[in-house]
Amino acid sequence: MIFTLHSNLVKKIFITDLPLCRVLLEDEKNYPWLFLVPRQINTSRIIDLSVTDQLQLMKELDFVQRVMWEEFKPAQLNVAAIGNKTPQLHIHVIARYINDPAWPNTVWDHSIRSHYDENKKRSITQRLKLLLSEASK
Amino acid sequence: MIFTLHSNLVKKIFITDLPLCRVLLEDEKNYPWLFLVPRQINTSRIIDLSVTDQLQLMKELDFVQRVMWEEFKPAQLNVAAIGNKTPQLHIHVIARYINDPAWPNTVWDHSIRSHYDENKKRSITQRLKLLLSEASK
Repeated sequence: MIFTLHSNLVKKIFITDLPLCRVLLEDEKNYPWLFLVPRQINTSRIIDLSVTDQLQLMKELDFVQRVMWEEFKPAQLNVAAIGNKTPQLHIHVIARYINDPAWPNTVWDHSIRSHYDENKKRSITQRLKLLLSEASK
Repeated sequence: MIFTLHSNLVKKIFITDLPLCRVLLEDEKNYPWLFLVPRQINTSRIIDLSVTDQLQLMKELDFVQRVMWEEFKPAQLNVAAIGNKTPQLHIHVIARYINDPAWPNTVWDHSIRSHYDENKKRSITQRLKLLLSEASK
């Protein structure tokens, strides 16, 4: 079998492939929001990965969090594997601000959702591609 | 400085100390719900840990998730570092069921909360102490 994205994830914006994970961007202007999707088949939760892959996932999460921390200067980073609605393992990394619409609650069940305008979507996508592709070489 | 628990975490039920993390149980009968709290000072997010400690955290998360998967036979495991309200790094590991009150949404902002009765609280605490202390020796 070949790795493919679940239909709920294929709609996200492609940023780059790290050694283990595909990195995707949510089109949500209130919170910079990335997904790391291990390019493995039949994974619904972290424990479906080998321990070696779990440790690689942690290294890639560290890298992505540090880039987001530097680039977006948030108050906090929310990191989560949930997967109740999308049964393909994907880890959310979300930059949070004390003046964002959902703060201090979580974003997943929050009703306020807003897309980037086209210019902003293009610029943040290009910036993240640069930061996450260049530094991972 | 000596490791101490934030006031929001000190109320949770102590289960055991793994090499890095203190394991705590939420008194919430709808979802078996543990916290892993790295016994380090000045940590608010995963990237505040050294890479070595991050990898140890992943190993301990793997262990705890496997115990919960076997013991509680849930439909899914939710694993998350949020910390918007409690600024001491703690990772939630929550067993979820398709008939639990919040499914398929997340539990954090869900209004239904119920404590264990005293007998159940004692038995699940003892069981988790056994499973998480014995196997980690």
